[in-house]
Amino acid sequence: MLDLRPVFLVIGAFLATLGCAMLVPALVDLAFDHPDWPLFVASALITVFFGVTMWVTCRGAETRLGLREAFVLTTFVWVIGAGFAALPLYWAGLNLTFTDAYFEAMSGLTTTGSTVIVGLDNAAPGLLLWRAILQWIGGIGIVVTAVAVLPMLQIGGMQYFRAEAFDTPEKILPRASQLAGSLIGVYLVLTAACAVLYAVAGMTPFDAIAHSMTTVATAGFSTKDASFAAFGPAVQWIAIVFMAAGALPFMLYVKAIRGNPRALFDDEQVRAFFVILGGLVVLSLFSIGLQPGAVDAPLREVMFNMVSIMTGTGYATTDFNHWGPLAVGLFFTAMFIGGCTGSTSCGMKVFRFVVMFQNIRQHAQRIVHPSGIFVKRYNGRPLSDNISAAVLTFVFLYLVGFAVLAVALSLTGVDAITAASGAATAISNVGPGLGPVIGPAGNFASLPDTAKWLLTAGMLIGRLEILTVLVLFIPAFWHR
Amino acid sequence: MLDLRPVFLVIGAFLATLGCAMLVPALVDLAFDHPDWPLFVASALITVFFGVTMWVTCRGAETRLGLREAFVLTTFVWVIGAGFAALPLYWAGLNLTFTDAYFEAMSGLTTTGSTVIVGLDNAAPGLLLWRAILQWIGGIGIVVTAVAVLPMLQIGGMQYFRAEAFDTPEKILPRASQLAGSLIGVYLVLTAACAVLYAVAGMTPFDAIAHSMTTVATAGFSTKDASFAAFGPAVQWIAIVFMAAGALPFMLYVKAIRGNPRALFDDEQVRAFFVILGGLVVLSLFSIGLQPGAVDAPLREVMFNMVSIMTGTGYATTDFNHWGPLAVGLFFTAMFIGGCTGSTSCGMKVFRFVVMFQNIRQHAQRIVHPSGIFVKRYNGRPLSDNISAAVLTFVFLYLVGFAVLAVALSLTGVDAITAASGAATAISNVGPGLGPVIGPAGNFASLPDTAKWLLTAGMLIGRLEILTVLVLFIPAFWHR
Repeated sequence: MLDLRPVFLVIGAFLATLGCAMLVPALVDLAFDHPDWPLFVASALITVFFGVTMWVTCRGAETRLGLREAFVLTTFVWVIGAGFAALPLYWAGLNLTFTDAYFEAMSGLTTTGSTVIVGLDNAAPGLLLWRAILQWIGGIGIVVTAVAVLPMLQIGGMQYFRAEAFDTPEKILPRASQLAGSLIGVYLVLTAACAVLYAVAGMTPFDAIAHSMTTVATAGFSTKDASFAAFGPAVQWIAIVFMAAGALPFMLYVKAIRGNPRALFDDEQVRAFFVILGGLVVLSLFSIGLQPGAVDAPLREVMFNMVSIMTGTGYATTDFNHWGPLAVGLFFTAMFIGGCTGSTSCGMKVFRFVVMFQNIRQHAQRIVHPSGIFVKRYNGRPLSDNISAAVLTFVFLYLVGFAVLAVALSLTGVDAITAASGAATAISNVGPGLGPVIGPAGNFASLPDTAKWLLTAGMLIGRLEILTVLVLFIPAFWHR
Repeated sequence: MLDLRPVFLVIGAFLATLGCAMLVPALVDLAFDHPDWPLFVASALITVFFGVTMWVTCRGAETRLGLREAFVLTTFVWVIGAGFAALPLYWAGLNLTFTDAYFEAMSGLTTTGSTVIVGLDNAAPGLLLWRAILQWIGGIGIVVTAVAVLPMLQIGGMQYFRAEAFDTPEKILPRASQLAGSLIGVYLVLTAACAVLYAVAGMTPFDAIAHSMTTVATAGFSTKDASFAAFGPAVQWIAIVFMAAGALPFMLYVKAIRGNPRALFDDEQVRAFFVILGGLVVLSLFSIGLQPGAVDAPLREVMFNMVSIMTGTGYATTDFNHWGPLAVGLFFTAMFIGGCTGSTSCGMKVFRFVVMFQNIRQHAQRIVHPSGIFVKRYNGRPLSDNISAAVLTFVFLYLVGFAVLAVALSLTGVDAITAASGAATAISNVGPGLGPVIGPAGNFASLPDTAKWLLTAGMLIGRLEILTVLVLFIPAFWHR
């Protein structure tokens, strides 16, 4: 059996931090004179108590985390964290069942942004802030996981990035804890810049802070039922910039700061991200052009909604279901593609599409010049076939996961569009689906409980790149 | 520039054969006293004339086919062959445009089975037979291509089968021409057996022969507007067996005959095919169970339609669109999976799913036992990562091809279900799509011409495993 004490040591520390974070919405509710503050204090006490107890209980053990322990930790942090994060949502007097509260908390920590809460406009400020904090924690959590943990677990070709983080040829990057500090620093600066610009562009300070946290995390919870339709064009353009910024590899910001300012522009994944995004925007504009008068400011509307969906943020300004079948197909495709590896965003990730493209290129070159030797490269480094094999595994599991989830959802009695787009939006951590029920104008509240639990599971496995979670269900994983 | 004379030499020989084959429907029309026979004779004369002219013109050249010439040949045989095969359909007095006739001919030669002809019940026997002959020729054509040509072209991991065909350890298999002869022999025996059984079970001799050709080719043209709903349960069970037989690797039949009777049962691909098929049947029965009274004989109906769709045959006995959303999803999935590599059937092929499964297995084993060494195997032979990389390329191009085709179809103005299922049924060479227009109860006649040409292109690239066709569009392929 595995010795899980080092795992619970880390989870205990995380819960203690999460509990302390609950005091922020408590203070805000107190400041706004809202009677909800005691429930945040109560949740904080419970969470800190469990966290500290876990930490104290497990402290004696050897603290080295092996490979299998890292798998257990990654999944358990999100599953257990969401359980405690759900407490204030459950008690907040919104008539949420525990299913609803857990769904909302998982949607927050996985930076998905699907919501079951109706009536955000009149909700308590503490509650709105707590939802934003959850997404913000989830965003930096996944960046650190993607940079420091997933490459070690060799999930979906992420082993390629092992060397990048810890022994680049340039030797500009020091050790793991320092690296995590740099990543968090970048995240803080981006969030602060976004908040200031939002406030300058006309948001209230509260809305600016809450939205900056869910923008940079490409997460999508809003404080308004109308989402970004409640704000003006200037705010929307700022959101476009920072959603895109959140979808770029955070390692590159660190490199840029440490003396390589061209890191972001020279990266193949970043360039591919903007090329794909540009293509989707142009095609969407073309689709809208076929429906004259459907949209007031086509460029801004298309840019905002396409960036929002492709990065997995999930803010909406309008219901793009009315933009014609081509646009709907493009949005559905964008959901699957997602942002860059090592960012806060979700989906299959652009890196894997670059790998697939390099494979096709090599194959075509071999056909044209049968006697030539062609090496696949990514950012100048050779890309071995075992990365391709791992990407194949990932893509296959991703599509099977999507199909199984869609079928399971359809068995709960929801319509076909809700089942298919719900599965896609959950596994890609986007937020809204398509169609009248869960589309940009809809809400997940009306779904049956079984569907909510299925979607919750979908968000988790999508966020943690699938295999990370699935291996825990192999009996041999536990008894070696 | 490429010297295309050896290519046109082979195509000339093929056209001469195709022209001679047109005399069979001419004789049948004459025997049934139908006035259509002269148009078959005229088409035959034209086709033979062009074929012989090509052959004579190109005869002087060096006859060695290089790798690039093999690519050109593979695509051009289908494109040019369909052009001549369309002549009798165009002239047959059915009011088909040339677009319709070419669509029908390509649907025949690619063993797809989508049809634009309404009123089969009253059509001339020669015409019905010609459609069946086209599919029968297309069926053996793809088997020979898959066994002898695609492994050489290294398309989609097919290089794995290079050794299997030409230098198995057992040394039981002689050289290419002998191999082709064996494959054709197997094909003839299966077709004859199927025809005899159909006739015994109650079909007229004409229907038995026409359907046996399109059954073993897993192709799907019928002589009846009602397809297999026009025949009794015994005939349908026979069809189930022979559609499945057509979807197994024909090399294994040859091996079985040459002294290894267990070849078929020991093959991983064959076992995976039946496991997947069984799973889809069980789940479909479950879906039907949720809609009591929807189907009279659930087991037969599900078996028939699922085997028909998964093998890419495309016969129908009923409109499975009414079997509930789960069943529709399963049928859609079955379209993509398809039959075995080296059979007459279509889709991504079970072989590639086995490769993906082996990748997942290896990956999971490495996670559970980080210090172990695990080799992927297929039928006992190691499966290298470069096969996985080639499968990744194939799967990616297949899905992109599907998405591009679906978007392009939706731009022609057809509804979303028709666009999505039309793209899937064309690229997977199945036949019917989903929904009221092109579903099992529908017909492709009403689609706009642009949509028909798009679907024709989809059938071609799907049948020839995508990259085979796409490389012809790389300028450097032509000028080296």
